[in-house]
Amino acid sequence: MIAMYIGIGIASAQTWIWYPGDYEIWLGNKMNNRRTERGAFFPPFWRQESHFVTVEFSTQVDLATAEELTIAAEGTFNIKIDGKLQFGMPQKITIPAGQHKINIKVHNQVTPPALFVSGATIKSGSHWKVTSEDKEWIDESGKASDTSTTTYMQAGSWNFNDALSLPSQFSLVRDAQIAVSKDGNLYDFGRETFGYVKLHGIIGNGKIGVFYGESPEEARDEEHCETLDYLQVTDGMVTNLATNETVQLDNIYVFSNSKAFRYVYIKTEGSVDVANVSMDYEYMPETAVGTFRCNDELVNRMWEVGQYTLQLTTREFFIDGIKRDRWVWSGDASQSYLMNYYLFNDNDEVKRTMWLLAGKEPISSHINTIMDYTFYWLISIYDYYMYSADTQFLQQIYPKMLSYVDYVESRTDADGLVQGLAGDWVFVDWADKPMDKHGQLSFEQILYCRALEATAKVAALVGDSENEQKIAARAADVKSKLLPYFWDDTKKAIVHNRIDGKQSDEVFKFSNIFAIMFDYLSDEQKKEVEKSVLLNDEVLKITTPYMRFYEMEALCQLGAQEQVMREMKAYWGGMLSEGATTFWEKYNPTDSGTQHLAMYGRPYGKSLCHAWGASPIYLLGRYYLGVQPTKPGYDEYEVRPSLGGLKWIEGDVPTPFGKIHIRMNKKRVTVKSDGGRGTLIVGKKQIEIPSGKEISVRL
Amino acid sequence: MIAMYIGIGIASAQTWIWYPGDYEIWLGNKMNNRRTERGAFFPPFWRQESHFVTVEFSTQVDLATAEELTIAAEGTFNIKIDGKLQFGMPQKITIPAGQHKINIKVHNQVTPPALFVSGATIKSGSHWKVTSEDKEWIDESGKASDTSTTTYMQAGSWNFNDALSLPSQFSLVRDAQIAVSKDGNLYDFGRETFGYVKLHGIIGNGKIGVFYGESPEEARDEEHCETLDYLQVTDGMVTNLATNETVQLDNIYVFSNSKAFRYVYIKTEGSVDVANVSMDYEYMPETAVGTFRCNDELVNRMWEVGQYTLQLTTREFFIDGIKRDRWVWSGDASQSYLMNYYLFNDNDEVKRTMWLLAGKEPISSHINTIMDYTFYWLISIYDYYMYSADTQFLQQIYPKMLSYVDYVESRTDADGLVQGLAGDWVFVDWADKPMDKHGQLSFEQILYCRALEATAKVAALVGDSENEQKIAARAADVKSKLLPYFWDDTKKAIVHNRIDGKQSDEVFKFSNIFAIMFDYLSDEQKKEVEKSVLLNDEVLKITTPYMRFYEMEALCQLGAQEQVMREMKAYWGGMLSEGATTFWEKYNPTDSGTQHLAMYGRPYGKSLCHAWGASPIYLLGRYYLGVQPTKPGYDEYEVRPSLGGLKWIEGDVPTPFGKIHIRMNKKRVTVKSDGGRGTLIVGKKQIEIPSGKEISVRL
Repeated sequence: MIAMYIGIGIASAQTWIWYPGDYEIWLGNKMNNRRTERGAFFPPFWRQESHFVTVEFSTQVDLATAEELTIAAEGTFNIKIDGKLQFGMPQKITIPAGQHKINIKVHNQVTPPALFVSGATIKSGSHWKVTSEDKEWIDESGKASDTSTTTYMQAGSWNFNDALSLPSQFSLVRDAQIAVSKDGNLYDFGRETFGYVKLHGIIGNGKIGVFYGESPEEARDEEHCETLDYLQVTDGMVTNLATNETVQLDNIYVFSNSKAFRYVYIKTEGSVDVANVSMDYEYMPETAVGTFRCNDELVNRMWEVGQYTLQLTTREFFIDGIKRDRWVWSGDASQSYLMNYYLFNDNDEVKRTMWLLAGKEPISSHINTIMDYTFYWLISIYDYYMYSADTQFLQQIYPKMLSYVDYVESRTDADGLVQGLAGDWVFVDWADKPMDKHGQLSFEQILYCRALEATAKVAALVGDSENEQKIAARAADVKSKLLPYFWDDTKKAIVHNRIDGKQSDEVFKFSNIFAIMFDYLSDEQKKEVEKSVLLNDEVLKITTPYMRFYEMEALCQLGAQEQVMREMKAYWGGMLSEGATTFWEKYNPTDSGTQHLAMYGRPYGKSLCHAWGASPIYLLGRYYLGVQPTKPGYDEYEVRPSLGGLKWIEGDVPTPFGKIHIRMNKKRVTVKSDGGRGTLIVGKKQIEIPSGKEISVRL
Repeated sequence: MIAMYIGIGIASAQTWIWYPGDYEIWLGNKMNNRRTERGAFFPPFWRQESHFVTVEFSTQVDLATAEELTIAAEGTFNIKIDGKLQFGMPQKITIPAGQHKINIKVHNQVTPPALFVSGATIKSGSHWKVTSEDKEWIDESGKASDTSTTTYMQAGSWNFNDALSLPSQFSLVRDAQIAVSKDGNLYDFGRETFGYVKLHGIIGNGKIGVFYGESPEEARDEEHCETLDYLQVTDGMVTNLATNETVQLDNIYVFSNSKAFRYVYIKTEGSVDVANVSMDYEYMPETAVGTFRCNDELVNRMWEVGQYTLQLTTREFFIDGIKRDRWVWSGDASQSYLMNYYLFNDNDEVKRTMWLLAGKEPISSHINTIMDYTFYWLISIYDYYMYSADTQFLQQIYPKMLSYVDYVESRTDADGLVQGLAGDWVFVDWADKPMDKHGQLSFEQILYCRALEATAKVAALVGDSENEQKIAARAADVKSKLLPYFWDDTKKAIVHNRIDGKQSDEVFKFSNIFAIMFDYLSDEQKKEVEKSVLLNDEVLKITTPYMRFYEMEALCQLGAQEQVMREMKAYWGGMLSEGATTFWEKYNPTDSGTQHLAMYGRPYGKSLCHAWGASPIYLLGRYYLGVQPTKPGYDEYEVRPSLGGLKWIEGDVPTPFGKIHIRMNKKRVTVKSDGGRGTLIVGKKQIEIPSGKEISVRL
């Protein structure tokens, strides 16, 4: 039923296709290699691959009447009809009536081989097969080999739906914008933004320094701002001193690399002068299908700023933050996915990001080198399935999931648990206190266990019962060790780690939060942990929105929506009261002034627009509007709305079939859904939500 | 001692560097994807990969005085000195006196990231390290991670020795040539050749057909010639109908894709006319250091035609043949390597070809999909070491050797032997009789055994004693089964195969030849096999020069140089008497007329310029001039000259230190060597060959 929306919906599209993951890796390379640090190129430190340069697309057709195909390809190509190679690279070709096999090979070293085929009934789409090695050799007599063992994938695609929309030409959208105010040479664009700075009316000769700041302090600090540019203007020629590009001086100079900033500070040497500064804002067009409004304007502002934060960090892929890394990080992205399900519900963005993170075989490190990030990636795939019912993607990505699970298993210890080995980054969180990363960390075991469970479920969904059983057994084994190894019954808490068989004394919130979320504790233990850890001021406070996301989620799952609303208003509201126009990478309410800007030992090292800051989007959608799928793709779902202390709330949650609208005040809940089989749960009442018809329930 | 020539010689060079194998794979993709078949693009059917898009080069220096570096890169780059990132992409930078670390990251999606650094003492070369993932992350305080477990390789390089010689701009050399005669519209270029056809003086409108032929029959046969082009000329515009390229009509139209041919036939439709046809001959510049002359002009002609055949097939890489595949095939290439050691001695060509064949991890099929070809690749690496003493290459390529050995082992049967599984091409040879490819083929076990022995030796050379022992033990196990499983004491021969534990009756020459060459038979058995198989007319005759190569070699090893000389004159001389200007892919002396042109069920399917046809080069150098290294890189070598029935022979054999010159007649042998420690062996005499001084020995 749900497959109607997804499987067949995609399959019948007429769209450009490629080897799944290859376009994403290629586009991701472009993005991940645009980072600069104070004028220096700053690429990722993990392995980056490229696309297969020659791939074969194929399909089988059964035509009632002959049909003319239009073929477009990115690359050199050939076409075989029923095994017979055709002359040249035909842009038009007629397929006779009847059953036929069509095989098209495309080669492209520079950009991913891609294909677009269009006919009355024959249309390229993700139902086409693709392989990177067809192993079709011939023998002495010219007879072709049996290629029945060739590994075919279902083709990858996005939204390049006409012959002229070349995948390799994809670019984000740009809009010209001007600064809202100017203080000497400091230009203020009014809020955090991203794009290409433009210098107007350059005259004279000399050097122009352009210093970008998320804060005015950063922009004015030539020596320490994170990003900058220098131009040398000499006799009508302008040279970018970072990139060595030289162009003729024109009315407007546009920088070729985008930057994140709110403020731009200009400093000149010599006779050169700059009349004005503007920008081309660059963004991914997204529609905010998800909405939230309530009686509290601070909460509404949290939603708006969260939405803008997620908009800025939703680019070719979900990135971490716009100023510094601008890279795709799995831990960060897995939070963006969840927020996205309650805002844009852009499945393609989720899948692209997952493909890029997966990279190519062989696996030589954890995703982004971080152990936790491999686990988040595995977990997030099953989550995605719940929101999308996209079984085709599961089929495509599952072999990579198996590879990661194998990679992790090959590095487990004698207990079958994970420990950080040489080359593994054990991250957990940026904490304000040294955290021992040695031995078995309870946090990593819990994520590992959940990742195995998620992979086993996907194995079942793609019909690999042998691996399903093997991986589920491994998950059960890890799970069986969690409490014996890490539960401290005196502290009523999961301790941080275990070294050489010895449980440590240290308690952090992290693993306790996840043990609640993943239901690895009894109800009694959860209540104990809520008191002994989550609401215990003795335990180290979390100062990243990253881990506060999960902390808030765990509390919501324990029904503490009112508590969480207070926390959100204090924490995210705290950033707003510091003047935030987007949410930050880290926020410690006890800091003050420019302390808020510093990180990594650098005065402006902190990102002030970080995707993981935007979690109110997710929390408000899932735990206040209260909507979540209970069957894949919202085929079934539940609505458990909660005011959390507010007077009224209202909003929309996107789904594959449209949206679900919720209004609630202290007296009444109203729900209208475009589809699916929903259940409204208020108190002990469970009311069926009909499709397409508003229902209203008195509380 | 020998390391002086190789290791340090390369290390001190100032040259462009890259990730080893990556440039070769990129260049190989360009070459392997240029094949066409009757106007259709025809790429390989095995997996083709691409380069890592971001790599880090590094070195450590200790400078007496400060030094200015010039930096050139193919790609965006950054530079760290002692861990500190420098601004921009400096083309000049000064390194202060003292000990310093230099790290340079280069990113390039389109062509392989490459680097050239030039200073008074600091020069980029293959002694620089390179990695595709440095795993250098930072913690909260900005402290960098420990990268001591990062996998570094020694950088790859070739002969791009100045800043302006960009590796990505490499191209073969072109020389304009004209046809030697013309018969109507059939142009004859006098001998087999390769390049870009040029049409002169096109006038009028219409279609021009260009039909290429290695024979006049092929060129004149529009319907069956293997390669062709069609142009459409309309009102001063010319469109190549195969590639869809359109250009303005000019005095000369040059085709953009090279072809192999001796004859070009032009056919026009409409009012269009072509005044003349010429070509740009394209070739790899090589110097024939190896030479051979003797009293017999037929043998001299064999050498010359062999040399020209190898010259034509020695392109960016050693390819199979110039007309049809134009691909790098491991079995073919491993013969080219051996011929090359006696002709060009171009180590770089050998290494490039081996890198391309190795491809990238993970291994998903045999090299070129062919089981035998994986084994030849492994064997040829140790051979290369014997001719070059290039330990650096062994260090670089060894991990890939291990991967292939593991891949093969993962597919062995219960006996630990190899059988063709689904997707494996078990090739052996193009034989004129159906050959059963099922079960355990003696031929494949013998190659497998030798491949394991070669890998074990390389493991020892790179200091991996654990794998050396493991792989040597595996080789011993396979070897111990060869005779019990395949020797038929009645037939006095190794039989072809064994299915379900049952030895077959069939005997082919192939495995018997290799068992002799690899010394897997006792001296008595060798003599028996010579009679019962090699010289037995009842056993299927070999009709490819490919396997005749080894047949001749085995006979030479048995001392049958006179017999081999007769065979060579009959077989290669047979092709010459058929008018060959290069040696062929296959030659059956019992064929006649156009039968010689047919193969693969196609009338002109056979390649008339095939590298494996050129084996007289190797045989004459190694078994008549009689020169071979006995220690790596000719540090020690032997000369066992043999007239093989000729009156006199004379020639040079290239070595890392220069060459070894031999003259022999029935009375006297004269040897002069530029280096090494040689032993001249004539009859029972063993005479030391001094370096740089001619010696002469009376027979």
